[in-house]
Amino acid sequence: MANRIEKDTLGEVAVPAARYWGAQTERSRKNFAIGPAASMPLPIIYGYAQLKKAAAQVNASLGILPAHKAALIAQVCDEILAGKLDDEFPLVIWQTGSGTQTNMNVNEVIANRAQVLSGGKLTDDKKILAANDDVNKSQSSNDSFPTAMHIAVYSETVRQLLPAVAGLRQSLAKKAYEFHALVKTGRTHLMDATPLTLGQEFSAYVAQLTHAESALVHALAAVRELALGGTAVGTGLNAPAGFAQAVADVIAEQTGLPFISVPNKFAALAAHDAMVSLSAACKQLAVSLMKIANDIRLLASGPRCGIGELLLPANEPGSSIMPGKVNPTQPEAVTMVAAQVMGNDVTVSIAGSNGQFQLNVFKPVIAASVLQSVQLLADASRSFDAHCVQGISANQARIDEHLSQSLMLVTALNPHIGYYKAAEIANKAHTEGSSLRAAALALGYVTAEQFDAWVNPAAMVGAELQSNNKSAGGEDS
Amino acid sequence: MANRIEKDTLGEVAVPAARYWGAQTERSRKNFAIGPAASMPLPIIYGYAQLKKAAAQVNASLGILPAHKAALIAQVCDEILAGKLDDEFPLVIWQTGSGTQTNMNVNEVIANRAQVLSGGKLTDDKKILAANDDVNKSQSSNDSFPTAMHIAVYSETVRQLLPAVAGLRQSLAKKAYEFHALVKTGRTHLMDATPLTLGQEFSAYVAQLTHAESALVHALAAVRELALGGTAVGTGLNAPAGFAQAVADVIAEQTGLPFISVPNKFAALAAHDAMVSLSAACKQLAVSLMKIANDIRLLASGPRCGIGELLLPANEPGSSIMPGKVNPTQPEAVTMVAAQVMGNDVTVSIAGSNGQFQLNVFKPVIAASVLQSVQLLADASRSFDAHCVQGISANQARIDEHLSQSLMLVTALNPHIGYYKAAEIANKAHTEGSSLRAAALALGYVTAEQFDAWVNPAAMVGAELQSNNKSAGGEDS
Amino acid sequence: MANRIEKDTLGEVAVPAARYWGAQTERSRKNFAIGPAASMPLPIIYGYAQLKKAAAQVNASLGILPAHKAALIAQVCDEILAGKLDDEFPLVIWQTGSGTQTNMNVNEVIANRAQVLSGGKLTDDKKILAANDDVNKSQSSNDSFPTAMHIAVYSETVRQLLPAVAGLRQSLAKKAYEFHALVKTGRTHLMDATPLTLGQEFSAYVAQLTHAESALVHALAAVRELALGGTAVGTGLNAPAGFAQAVADVIAEQTGLPFISVPNKFAALAAHDAMVSLSAACKQLAVSLMKIANDIRLLASGPRCGIGELLLPANEPGSSIMPGKVNPTQPEAVTMVAAQVMGNDVTVSIAGSNGQFQLNVFKPVIAASVLQSVQLLADASRSFDAHCVQGISANQARIDEHLSQSLMLVTALNPHIGYYKAAEIANKAHTEGSSLRAAALALGYVTAEQFDAWVNPAAMVGAELQSNNKSAGGEDS
Amino acid sequence: MANRIEKDTLGEVAVPAARYWGAQTERSRKNFAIGPAASMPLPIIYGYAQLKKAAAQVNASLGILPAHKAALIAQVCDEILAGKLDDEFPLVIWQTGSGTQTNMNVNEVIANRAQVLSGGKLTDDKKILAANDDVNKSQSSNDSFPTAMHIAVYSETVRQLLPAVAGLRQSLAKKAYEFHALVKTGRTHLMDATPLTLGQEFSAYVAQLTHAESALVHALAAVRELALGGTAVGTGLNAPAGFAQAVADVIAEQTGLPFISVPNKFAALAAHDAMVSLSAACKQLAVSLMKIANDIRLLASGPRCGIGELLLPANEPGSSIMPGKVNPTQPEAVTMVAAQVMGNDVTVSIAGSNGQFQLNVFKPVIAASVLQSVQLLADASRSFDAHCVQGISANQARIDEHLSQSLMLVTALNPHIGYYKAAEIANKAHTEGSSLRAAALALGYVTAEQFDAWVNPAAMVGAELQSNNKSAGGEDS
Repeated sequence: MANRIEKDTLGEVAVPAARYWGAQTERSRKNFAIGPAASMPLPIIYGYAQLKKAAAQVNASLGILPAHKAALIAQVCDEILAGKLDDEFPLVIWQTGSGTQTNMNVNEVIANRAQVLSGGKLTDDKKILAANDDVNKSQSSNDSFPTAMHIAVYSETVRQLLPAVAGLRQSLAKKAYEFHALVKTGRTHLMDATPLTLGQEFSAYVAQLTHAESALVHALAAVRELALGGTAVGTGLNAPAGFAQAVADVIAEQTGLPFISVPNKFAALAAHDAMVSLSAACKQLAVSLMKIANDIRLLASGPRCGIGELLLPANEPGSSIMPGKVNPTQPEAVTMVAAQVMGNDVTVSIAGSNGQFQLNVFKPVIAASVLQSVQLLADASRSFDAHCVQGISANQARIDEHLSQSLMLVTALNPHIGYYKAAEIANKAHTEGSSLRAAALALGYVTAEQFDAWVNPAAMVGAELQSNNKSAGGEDS
Repeated sequence: MANRIEKDTLGEVAVPAARYWGAQTERSRKNFAIGPAASMPLPIIYGYAQLKKAAAQVNASLGILPAHKAALIAQVCDEILAGKLDDEFPLVIWQTGSGTQTNMNVNEVIANRAQVLSGGKLTDDKKILAANDDVNKSQSSNDSFPTAMHIAVYSETVRQLLPAVAGLRQSLAKKAYEFHALVKTGRTHLMDATPLTLGQEFSAYVAQLTHAESALVHALAAVRELALGGTAVGTGLNAPAGFAQAVADVIAEQTGLPFISVPNKFAALAAHDAMVSLSAACKQLAVSLMKIANDIRLLASGPRCGIGELLLPANEPGSSIMPGKVNPTQPEAVTMVAAQVMGNDVTVSIAGSNGQFQLNVFKPVIAASVLQSVQLLADASRSFDAHCVQGISANQARIDEHLSQSLMLVTALNPHIGYYKAAEIANKAHTEGSSLRAAALALGYVTAEQFDAWVNPAAMVGAELQSNNKSAGGEDS
Repeated sequence: MANRIEKDTLGEVAVPAARYWGAQTERSRKNFAIGPAASMPLPIIYGYAQLKKAAAQVNASLGILPAHKAALIAQVCDEILAGKLDDEFPLVIWQTGSGTQTNMNVNEVIANRAQVLSGGKLTDDKKILAANDDVNKSQSSNDSFPTAMHIAVYSETVRQLLPAVAGLRQSLAKKAYEFHALVKTGRTHLMDATPLTLGQEFSAYVAQLTHAESALVHALAAVRELALGGTAVGTGLNAPAGFAQAVADVIAEQTGLPFISVPNKFAALAAHDAMVSLSAACKQLAVSLMKIANDIRLLASGPRCGIGELLLPANEPGSSIMPGKVNPTQPEAVTMVAAQVMGNDVTVSIAGSNGQFQLNVFKPVIAASVLQSVQLLADASRSFDAHCVQGISANQARIDEHLSQSLMLVTALNPHIGYYKAAEIANKAHTEGSSLRAAALALGYVTAEQFDAWVNPAAMVGAELQSNNKSAGGEDS
Repeated sequence: MANRIEKDTLGEVAVPAARYWGAQTERSRKNFAIGPAASMPLPIIYGYAQLKKAAAQVNASLGILPAHKAALIAQVCDEILAGKLDDEFPLVIWQTGSGTQTNMNVNEVIANRAQVLSGGKLTDDKKILAANDDVNKSQSSNDSFPTAMHIAVYSETVRQLLPAVAGLRQSLAKKAYEFHALVKTGRTHLMDATPLTLGQEFSAYVAQLTHAESALVHALAAVRELALGGTAVGTGLNAPAGFAQAVADVIAEQTGLPFISVPNKFAALAAHDAMVSLSAACKQLAVSLMKIANDIRLLASGPRCGIGELLLPANEPGSSIMPGKVNPTQPEAVTMVAAQVMGNDVTVSIAGSNGQFQLNVFKPVIAASVLQSVQLLADASRSFDAHCVQGISANQARIDEHLSQSLMLVTALNPHIGYYKAAEIANKAHTEGSSLRAAALALGYVTAEQFDAWVNPAAMVGAELQSNNKSAGGEDS
């Protein structure tokens, strides 16, 4: 592959002749052969395209960048956003901790692509746009990388994750409604407990997701704050007055998302608490999904030697050796994603805690981890919803069989005969393998009429609470 | 030590004669010799005292508990809350995962203490109060333990942690103001960077704490929701209509804190997302404190061979072998607490993710971990504030010396001569060990007058931003 | 409480008159009111007593400490080791990160107690022993604290944890033998799978614990290496030639444990990889225990609406509201401990990664976290063993019922009729709710004789493997 | 893109006509659109190719697979191992937790590619090889996926990670030797401390890496144990006698690595403690690298306003806005990798703890996380070595300047005048900004001759220890 020679302040570098990137990108490629190539997430590149375009427009409007340069920058940014230049961003996450090399990658690609768009050649000595002085004008990596990170994470969260979780929650809520009258045995400590409806059981999942959505939305409040305008250390050196506010406004307009300029630029460069907070909200969602997916696969366990109260869609043969086996594969994918997200949260916390002075230099790993958590949770929620939850049905026969056997129905006798006598009944039935009713009558603590009147599963599920909870699913805090 | 014989549904148990606890507490002591005795946090016991008292009052008002029994229960609860019975709660965190044994410990102590308060003896066959049927009336461990957990965590957070963080934030804000005109060199990647004021540097800490406070406050919204009234599985079986709402109101009144009844009782027993969320907010605060404390000790490093820009109070001799050594011990305690809280968050997440069906059985470890995080962060914030931050002073001579040497002042020349020529100047000065000014003049890129006009640290710290950020500290989101 | 005045290099301090501790301990008490008092683990104090005694002996033998002073130091150390002075160590974990204050606490207590033992008074102006110059001779906090930490962790691991895990493993191995012929249905993905014996199922637990023990033993190799002799930064300044080796020998002799002097003292002060490694081994054990305890409670779930293949001892009434309920409380305690240990490992990793230059200043939190993990795992293993595992019995009726129903016995037909026809049989039986045999015959793929010969659960459990695995439990790597 | 129709036991599936994969792969692609496509790591696919080839050979030698079928399977496996079929493995990590779909992907590709190699077509009704009955013969996903995982992880660790760490360690050892006589100030608590040599400082890094290598090697002992032969639940059903041992031998021969058959197959399917253990060893290495990289960048901080004792290679311009800035970018990449690996370890621990009964269904996420940790650590170690460590030089002038100023040289006076008088000297010098010597003489505690004789930095670095430690770097445990 032919090369051309590019220069930066350290000297000359041979770059693949046909590539738009320049000397600093190439240095980074050579110096950081860590993990697969091009691992820097594309949403970061697109966030950069948004901010470079906005910065150029604001620089032009403030009179420090000629309009034709701003227009060229915008043109290349639009190409980037259209996905036409994806191959021009070969750098990895594991580079300088400020993301400077990705910023320069973007600056170089914009400058060089603009050269070609203007009829020039990549080998021209004189360039229309200077990567540092024009494309990067009024910016530093230190404020632009966090800005790209916030744009990327905010966008992916509101456009991918929140709708996916809402979709899953609605499907669970539909199931809660569908199953609202289906009385079944409860289980605490994995042991038989007093009854509830299957709808109530599902309403808890709805409430958990509602809570997780609230956590995500709250965390987003700080993610919408952009560092741009702080430049190198937060003071805004070399950015004109009014730049920070104006560029946030333009980015908001371009993206249709409510971005604002962060009040304290120093904290926005030196720490990434907004990412720590969003990662924690993702982790909370992961914790909830782990519980929900575990429950569903346990309830569907069997078909003959487990609990077997739920029937999941049979999406694929489950075993390469056991014929006819069908497995709860969607919950498995969900719980694996949950484990990943819980680990990512530790990565983000460690990275977030290790900033020093005016800069946190764990920016790329923070960005990549949070974006992965957001993406995996979104995809897994959609997959779980479409390929599992929507197709869940209840195994009424199994549910009824369990309910009729449960010794914990005895709890309904507490108010009438007290905890101790009720325990005596349950213990007798358990030991003898008899029914509760037989044991109760044998002990003489209740009459048959009393037993039948008091021990009525359908009356034990809390009509009042049940209706409250059914609606509460969607409104919970 | 003499024993008396107590009974429960499994049979007889010998209990220390003078103790108020009964058979089930004693079984737990014997069966769970794990870690130091009495590790169940006292705030959980006090939370239980609040709820037992409130439940008794509501049960009485709803006509299902005689008034004199309710009064007796209240009387013992008040003794518990006054700390008079602390020694009666010997159980450990590492017991049943529902906390049932601690609930029974409380029930037994209340019943037995009431017996004595009523003139009876611990060995009386007939008891005025039945632990299960009276003290535990309308309750289960499954709803009462989470309620005690929420009361304890909410109280400690609003009464200890939030004031402590606010105090620390205010001290940092005072320092930000005190240092608002003190221009110094910035540092990014640990390398010399463009200047800022020491006040701006401290304003970032203020902004971080403000963000953490916001995260705590948001997480508290779900912590104030109480599970009581859900009883065994969330249906409210054996609790009278209206109990849940009424008991939350009474607890709110008793504590002066805005507790409400949780809308979905099923989720409140089966999962502890409210705790997961509050733990994450604590972790965010820990991440911020790690950064802040690290910065402060690095800035104070030396006294002669480090950065030395800050002077910390000398609270104690720092070394058993090196005479005259003084160390940044308060930041060290803070960062150790941060490491603990970050680990606790993993514990809480794992515990929170492993609930099954109608009950999460990691309740005690969740409660203990969150309470430890809250307490340690509160104490460490207060200690750091009182014994370090309030006494910080600036080492003006050292700061000036650094500022005058920094090559990164060259950045101010970018808008005038471009990034490349500015780099040439910096590289020349670096290589030759000369001043920027000398290098700039030698290269002929600027005149002496231009250099002095353009390279002015005091003009590089962003007057506009500086004033914004100074106030922003207290208002950030 | 009356005070006396003590002095250190920073000046005078009022100390409770009757206490043996001195000025520096008192400063720490006042400056670090973080968490409960006296949280520094006693095993650290005892480790210090071992090393102070050994150092005095070596100092005396090398001629730099008078013999009578060494004898006095030894006498007080023996009192400490006998637990007589436990109340004299009031400091917390959250102090200086080097543990200097605990080192001085020990030095002060030894010096002051020696004064009294020698007939003097705490208020004497002239002391027989100087805390820094005599008791701390040839030592620094920087090498003594890690030494105390290693002595404590090594002792607790070999004397508490390893025997407890071995005991649990042996009980599980006994069960594996007891159940070696009990054929039951296997479960993969929580779904019915091909059969195995209950003994084989338990043999996996034995193999897991064996692996965890191996990890602990390997990690201990670095824990037995002691830093003492490195003094302030690892160079051994102010310690006489030969001190490091000699003091390790004496400590080994005193404790009966194979301690040696660490080859590289610099690493032993600046990092705590030995603790990171032991914590990771504890975490591996926690991961294994989580799996084992989860399995056992799932297999025991029911009694009527779960899997119900195991019967656990009924140690206590399980519910405050549900009469007759018995819960798997020991597995619950074990899994809570596992969650704690997994979180502790994150704490230790973060703390271990944050050392700087010649000293890691997260020593106390590392020591406390590792000791807690060791202690909790030891206690939980013993408790789980004694109160659960030893009492486990099999519910043969339930196991047989499950086995006879399992559709996955069809797998035995693969080699005879192929995976696809076998799947057809299983699917037909599943859909129709019929037996495998009926479905197989109806499809005409096998004769009744073939079916009965080929589908024989007892022949499906791998005689060869079974015997291998039975013995393998105890020998695995 | 044209499709062809493939079938499995659930029915027909349209598959891209030109692809070798079949129905089950295609179902997985459609059902698990989670994260980027083809995220299942290629080393897992290659591990599968090794085991499929070995299984075919053993099946043939045991007379249950025709030799020509075994040869065909081997031929395709060789193509896979040559990287010729990489595009035929489109599945993601986030699929079924057993990895069954990747196993079937491999089975299908082998069967279909063999069809074409034999002159057939993908659309042929009759296939030479049956994916389940021939390619998967004597295997299950449950034993084959862990086997592929172990082959992949073992290979990558011994071929990539261990050599990379050894290389880095050797470079650090060279620096330790190069700097063995360079006396400098030590630093504890970030504060000036007694001196050591720069070589001693680097020897600690060598000792840390040596310890991490030992941890990796120990963990590998269990990774070399292969589950193959256990089939569905560990019993080896449908695998012929002797298969497990024979197939391990063949895999060992094929790979040149010392694989053996795992003694307890049940544990090898139901848990992944070998992975938990290797992940923990990776994490220990990450913790060490975090410390080392942090030290190096702190020692190189400046160039004028930091510590500045080390000079790192200037690999690239460091800032898009600050001209002439050079940053410690390699240490930054290393510490980001460390944060990732520490998070991965939590993922693996959570995943490892959540197995149930005969199968852990977090296999793919465990495999992917461990492989990522191994790869990133290998690459980062190589990068750090080549682009940073090898080029480190000492800034002798700065080191001398610091050393000459350090007040902690006073420690050398302890044995002569006692800790208290020494402290008085240090405090006087500190307060007055004078030299130690001036303060010492002014106080009259030593003569000028004594001071010069006793306070000699070169004599304070422990000749004996120094030489021990220099060599110890390479021998430490």
